[in-house]
Amino acid sequence: MTDVLKGMRIVEGSAFVAVPLAGMTLAQMGADVIRFDRIGGGLDAGRWPVAPSGQSLFWAGMNKGKRSIAVDMKSPEGKELITRIITAPGEDAGMFLTNLRVRGWMDHETLSQHRRDLIMVTLMGDRHGRPQVDYTVNPALGIPDMTGPEEYEGPVANALPAWDLVAGNMVVSALLAAERHRLRTGEGQDVELSLKDVAAATLGHLGMIGDAVVNDAPRGKAGNALYGAYGQDFVCADGKRIMVIGLTARQWSGLVKVTETADQMAALEARTGKDLKDEGVRWALRQEITHILKPWFAQHPGPRISQQFDAAGVTWSQFRSVKEAVAEDTDLSPDNPMFEQLHQPGLGTFPVPGSPMSFSRHARKSPQKAPDLGAHTEEILGDVVRMTDAEIARLFDTGVVQSPNYAVGRSAA
Amino acid sequence: MTDVLKGMRIVEGSAFVAVPLAGMTLAQMGADVIRFDRIGGGLDAGRWPVAPSGQSLFWAGMNKGKRSIAVDMKSPEGKELITRIITAPGEDAGMFLTNLRVRGWMDHETLSQHRRDLIMVTLMGDRHGRPQVDYTVNPALGIPDMTGPEEYEGPVANALPAWDLVAGNMVVSALLAAERHRLRTGEGQDVELSLKDVAAATLGHLGMIGDAVVNDAPRGKAGNALYGAYGQDFVCADGKRIMVIGLTARQWSGLVKVTETADQMAALEARTGKDLKDEGVRWALRQEITHILKPWFAQHPGPRISQQFDAAGVTWSQFRSVKEAVAEDTDLSPDNPMFEQLHQPGLGTFPVPGSPMSFSRHARKSPQKAPDLGAHTEEILGDVVRMTDAEIARLFDTGVVQSPNYAVGRSAA
Repeated sequence: MTDVLKGMRIVEGSAFVAVPLAGMTLAQMGADVIRFDRIGGGLDAGRWPVAPSGQSLFWAGMNKGKRSIAVDMKSPEGKELITRIITAPGEDAGMFLTNLRVRGWMDHETLSQHRRDLIMVTLMGDRHGRPQVDYTVNPALGIPDMTGPEEYEGPVANALPAWDLVAGNMVVSALLAAERHRLRTGEGQDVELSLKDVAAATLGHLGMIGDAVVNDAPRGKAGNALYGAYGQDFVCADGKRIMVIGLTARQWSGLVKVTETADQMAALEARTGKDLKDEGVRWALRQEITHILKPWFAQHPGPRISQQFDAAGVTWSQFRSVKEAVAEDTDLSPDNPMFEQLHQPGLGTFPVPGSPMSFSRHARKSPQKAPDLGAHTEEILGDVVRMTDAEIARLFDTGVVQSPNYAVGRSAA
Repeated sequence: MTDVLKGMRIVEGSAFVAVPLAGMTLAQMGADVIRFDRIGGGLDAGRWPVAPSGQSLFWAGMNKGKRSIAVDMKSPEGKELITRIITAPGEDAGMFLTNLRVRGWMDHETLSQHRRDLIMVTLMGDRHGRPQVDYTVNPALGIPDMTGPEEYEGPVANALPAWDLVAGNMVVSALLAAERHRLRTGEGQDVELSLKDVAAATLGHLGMIGDAVVNDAPRGKAGNALYGAYGQDFVCADGKRIMVIGLTARQWSGLVKVTETADQMAALEARTGKDLKDEGVRWALRQEITHILKPWFAQHPGPRISQQFDAAGVTWSQFRSVKEAVAEDTDLSPDNPMFEQLHQPGLGTFPVPGSPMSFSRHARKSPQKAPDLGAHTEEILGDVVRMTDAEIARLFDTGVVQSPNYAVGRSAA
């Protein structure tokens, strides 16, 4: 949390990864982010991973620091309420993020009748408006085809929803850019992007589309090798597995020096007539290079290697499971000012991250937990929609809205 | 390209993926982005993939729409020049993105002596200032441990530099947030983030850190299955491989309906005493579900399945190589307004993407090629540093700067 965006109010109607991540990122930058959900929770309310209690660790992670309102979105009154929340007055309000493509009452045309300068950012599945998820976009664009061990024939999908993560961060950029334009001109606008377009554009940016068109040989699987230069995983004497990088000239010469393989590399150059200073040559000869380096790793235990690599400024890391990383790596602990150890009822106690951005003018603040579903229903109806207590009470009584506090209050009465 | 950020000027001193991607993203949103490089090109000048000519398709992809200046960064005059470019006057200038951590003359403290309201965003490797790349951060945090076929024992690294992509987009957001603050207060600032912190925070956001702490069972490999609900790849009668999603209740019921497996799913529920409407149950029973569905896919050819899935609104996609995707998918062609077929000398002719963001107030513009290294040297010295022709000529003559045009002009004289 920082407060660089303090004063901004953003409304989010979303589910799953990308748009919730966008809202959370903005909340951790200090914006007041209101997430609305249907009563009982949206499609992602129970998304895995879950705690032993069954409560979603995912939902808690994706909604940190937001305010939550639970509304019966099927009732006309609920729809009106959401419209009023999205289009409420305020110079720094009137911004709406969504991946729910609802025509008729929650589209830009309708909403902007209530607030002319509304900024709405919609993330679609693909440009045709069809639903897509990370798990469908990624295979369609060919990444699983180039992932995995060289000897393995099938495609290997990502465990990480990379496209969702990229798209969510682009939603943040799109919103900030549109708001910059509004600050200068007063004009709101309708911004659209799609998960598949984000992925397709990125393939192009990385040079993969050009590669597929102008080169005959397809980019095949290369196991854990660094593509296009040298980088490889090795098993050490104690069974630990290490990744080492020889991407830049400095990294490469450091690696050769520490492993004392300069003579063998020179012999390889002499034998092939190629120059290992060229990164493309290192890539082409990666198997020969790995063959030369392998015995050195097999003879040295991990901690000894780490020490030597650090001393020589070699870029490397150790393969771990997430459990090992959380147990061993202080970068994933409150030793890192980004993390704070939080207790969350129903979930447990573990390190929770704030924003990875550090702003010199805005002190880092503690990460905030995700709200209980509907925890801010009453407060939002008061301070955003400007309803009276009587109006708010009527909405609770008729079931148009819900809140854990109100329900408790009533059952105790 | 749009022009939502028209008028902004951003200077970039960078290499590889994240920060070049940030600058390119801002350029495609309409900002004037100046990338400076050392004479002959930076560390990423020849980064793979490359065209048959040896020219980098990667560099061309990462630097689209920027202006390029080539400077001898070791000479005092070159350092002064870069300082003047970064800190040049202009209300919408004075912004600097970098992943080169140079102390002494290119840090925030020194640069801001020349322009008090400078905004500088620095992406580091890790929070300690050590170099890290996507290929080291990812294994250290455990993603390769949960990637790949269930029967495969080793870790499987990503072919996609996902953390670089996420970090690059966060650099964009950080810059826009800091500039928003400057527009209101006049205050510049020093913004820092690190690749490893971006990855570590994201693990937390996705619930993976909580999962590692509060649950005994580690998240293991699950092949191409969708984690936490149902989603699986199947080979069809014609050998095509399809990914199908049963994440939401609607997706799941659509899948069961089209495959006519309702009876078998009901029998599975009866036998296990579990309710497949629960996404966690679908995850736990994914192997049994796959066993039920498999024969249906094996009996139907891909095109027939596609048709039925589309008609029923099932979310699915087909596994392809990048070559197949580029050849078959119109979303990766100029049929998609995001793409344009460009001819680039030394590289070839292929579809080049613009920004995936579409702004209703800013018409989409054609994607611009990357510049030749130093192509704008003369122009930047004139319009940004405000040098006279004589001053500029002297810098070329003394080799402090370089440009392909100037060299051509001189050799023709």
